[in-house]
This record gives sequence, structure tokens and C-alpha cells, in this order.
Amino acid sequence: MKAVTKLSVVVVGSGNVGFHLGRWLVEREVQLVQVFSRTEAKAQQLAEAINTSFTTSLSEITTEADIYILAVQDSAISSVAAQLAAILPSDKIVVHTSGATPMTILQPFFPHSGVFYPLQTFSIDRQPDFESIPICIDAAEEDVRELLFLLGKRLSSVVYHLTDEQRAVAHVAAVFVNNFANHLFQIGADILQKEQLPFDLVRPLILETAAKVQQHFPETMQTGPAIRRDTLTIERHLNYLEQFPNYKMLYQILTESIRAER
Amino acid sequence: MKAVTKLSVVVVGSGNVGFHLGRWLVEREVQLVQVFSRTEAKAQQLAEAINTSFTTSLSEITTEADIYILAVQDSAISSVAAQLAAILPSDKIVVHTSGATPMTILQPFFPHSGVFYPLQTFSIDRQPDFESIPICIDAAEEDVRELLFLLGKRLSSVVYHLTDEQRAVAHVAAVFVNNFANHLFQIGADILQKEQLPFDLVRPLILETAAKVQQHFPETMQTGPAIRRDTLTIERHLNYLEQFPNYKMLYQILTESIRAER
Repeated sequence: MKAVTKLSVVVVGSGNVGFHLGRWLVEREVQLVQVFSRTEAKAQQLAEAINTSFTTSLSEITTEADIYILAVQDSAISSVAAQLAAILPSDKIVVHTSGATPMTILQPFFPHSGVFYPLQTFSIDRQPDFESIPICIDAAEEDVRELLFLLGKRLSSVVYHLTDEQRAVAHVAAVFVNNFANHLFQIGADILQKEQLPFDLVRPLILETAAKVQQHFPETMQTGPAIRRDTLTIERHLNYLEQFPNYKMLYQILTESIRAER
Repeated sequence: MKAVTKLSVVVVGSGNVGFHLGRWLVEREVQLVQVFSRTEAKAQQLAEAINTSFTTSLSEITTEADIYILAVQDSAISSVAAQLAAILPSDKIVVHTSGATPMTILQPFFPHSGVFYPLQTFSIDRQPDFESIPICIDAAEEDVRELLFLLGKRLSSVVYHLTDEQRAVAHVAAVFVNNFANHLFQIGADILQKEQLPFDLVRPLILETAAKVQQHFPETMQTGPAIRRDTLTIERHLNYLEQFPNYKMLYQILTESIRAER
């Protein structure tokens, strides 16, 4: 099996994950030989940023690389895989980057199929701290799993081998702590905006709330009217939220849920 | 009116807010002449940390200071204020540090009553970044308001004058972005623990989610299955959550709430 430094990689997709993964691989001196995007402007932007070649046609993807990383939307993995299966030799390793998608979707490449899932939220205009991003890998075959593990360790200090089921569970947890938490941030912003108060009022609070749970468990960090059963404050808040029926209902349900923990 | 540097301050209470506020005032060279706590050990700990005197008896609080900051539980403000009113001269400024409590609870000190509310979550074992903490001030009288504003500016670069109603709204927003978000972090931790997966898997994600909204608005940062109406993933997640009926219900309601935004 090749050393990680000798591996050549193709990244298929140039959305938020593909874009950052491409830059990440190059930063860690992994040979990224080609990137693919359906959108020429995005393919070109990424290829130029990392000084590699690009294509906008799946049929023109090089067949010379060792690993193909599919960083496309979950709903596109299956059809992209089918198109690649028609052109790639059978010894190529093909992985997807999806938390929610089973590895079996890459059945055409069995036993060289795998998963390479960075558990982080990516945006084009933010540079993440690559070193600390957990990478969850899996593969149908032990050899491939080892290789993906080594590739992961080249990118990050935190690499886990997670089965399909474990990765799916991690993805559910991620939805709560990221997508749903962000929605609560938005509710905060909405409530403040209604009174023409700036979102800046709570930005430091949001950052500190997240910083606290880096060392501690959230259960021990819970504060506020719900956990201390401060019914006077809760009643005042619910009264204020009459004008936002949806937020009022969420307030009640989340308050009940916090109370139910103790 | 005295210059801020000449003001002498008493902090009443040595919980998380009192403890950090005490250290904060001393760090910014405000004269903190005495701290009060019902608990001798806590009073002593704080007094030693900041090299000032302490008392565990409200009746022994000095009557010589200019400003008395009540950093006690919301439910104790009223009785502490009544006890202080019995001993303090009528020209003393008395403020509380509560987001949820109207200023009128300090009626005995009118017109020298006010509010000095640092909008942050405090823990004994964490050093907050004082400079960036928004301080929300209010006072019954213009002169007192100005003085509290200057005291606030001495502690932080961000001071707002908020009315009772505005402060109450900011407090509701704070409950969503801090208490409720922390509860979602806990749900993530619970789900991971059930599968014996480490909370470390999502800690970087939590930090990045909070970091993102420091420059952007959360509405523009929303990602995940709910916003992209990925019903296949949502169904898989709900299916998994069958074993956590409460979390399943929350998942459904939060998903609906995100969808309703668009």
C-alpha cells in the first residue's frame, strides 16, 4: 500500500466541503491532482486557489488517481458514483463525505468504498481550524480503512473510525448542536430586532456559551429560569412572547425539556 | 458628580456574577471597598482575591460608599434592598444586576436607583473576556444614568442604555441563545453517550457554529436537513430518535420552525 505522501487524490465537488477539503489537502501536502465541479466558475476558483487542474465533466475525470473523494450533495452521491463507476478502474478507492449517508451507496466500488466525513460546518468565507476538526472514516476493507485513517491523521489530530450507524448518530447530534442551536440564535436575533436592539448584545454570550462546553459538559453548565424553576421570570417571558406564537411554544417546550432532566 | 476613578463601590453577593464583577472592578482600578456574602467562605475567598474587606452581615455594610451593586439572586433583590434601605443614607446609588427584574424593585432608593446588567454567562472557573461583555445600564435619574454609563465604559467597550422593557427583551433573547442552546448541546451529548461516542466529536462544531454568527447573522448561516428540506435524512433521524421520545418531539418542532422561516 502506498504511503500517504505518495497518494494522489481527486476531489469531486466544489461546494463548502469540497472547497475547504481541497485547500486542506494541499495545505497538508497531499497530492491533489484534479477537482471537479459542474459549475465552471467554482471549479476554476478552487483549482486556481490550490494550483491544480479542474474539469466540469465527470467523463473527463482522471483515471490515474488513487482516491476519489465525493464532496457532493447527499442526493447526488448515488448518480455521481454510478457515472464514475463507468470510467474508473476497479482498484480505485472512492469515498463520500456525508454524515447521513450509508457507505453502501458506494457499492459499485466495493470493496474499495469508504467514508471520509469531516464533522464540521464549512462556509466559503471562513477559514476553519483544520487541525482540530474530527474526521470520521470508515471503509469496507481493513486496508482501505487504515489508509483513510492515515490520510485523516495527515489532515487533523482527531480521526475516528465510525461505523455507518455511529456516524448517523453523530450526524443527529450535529443537527442538534449546530443546525438547531443556530436556529435559536436566529430567534434571539429576531426578538432583538423587533425591539430595534442589536444582535451584538448577545454575540459575546453565544461565544462564551460555546466556549464553556469545550472543557465542561453542558449538563453541568445549565443556567437560567428553567433549571432554577424561576416561574415568575418564565411567566414574564411567556407573556412577552405572546406576539411570537411559534417562539412562545418553543420556549415552553424547551423549558419543560430542561426541567425534565432533573 | 464624582469622577468614576473616585467612586467607591460595594458589591453585595458573591455568586458567579458578584465574584467576577468584583474582580472586574478591581482589575479596572475602581475602588471596591467591601464585598458582602451570606456565606463566610465565599465572602472571604472573593475579598482575598481582590484584596478588600468583607462582611457576612447586611447590617455591617459600610454606609460610606457611593454605589452599591446588588449581585444577588433575582428573588432576593427585594429583601436585600429593604434591609439596605434601613441603613443607607438616601443619597446612595443602589443598582441591581438582573436582566429580568424591573428597576422599580429598588423603589426605596428612588431616584438613586438603577440597573447594571452585564449580559454574559459567568462561571467561577472561567475567566471571561471582560472588555467585550455588553453592560446594560439604566437609572431613574439622568445624572445617575450618566455615572453608570461611565462606570460601564470603564469596565467594557460595550455599554447600552436599555429601559426595563428593552432589558427584559434582551433577557428573553439571552435565554434562547444561551440556556436553550446549552440544552441542545446537552441533547447532543446524551445522544452520543448512548452510543458510547465522545462529546469531543461535536465540540469543534459547537465552537465554529458560535464563531460564525460573530460576524454574520444566524439566518444566513442556517444549514442542515431542515433548511434544505432533505426529507430522507429527516426521516432517518426521526426513526433513530424513536428511543428518545422527548428529543424526537423537539427535533420535529425545531425542524418545522426552521422550515417556517422560508
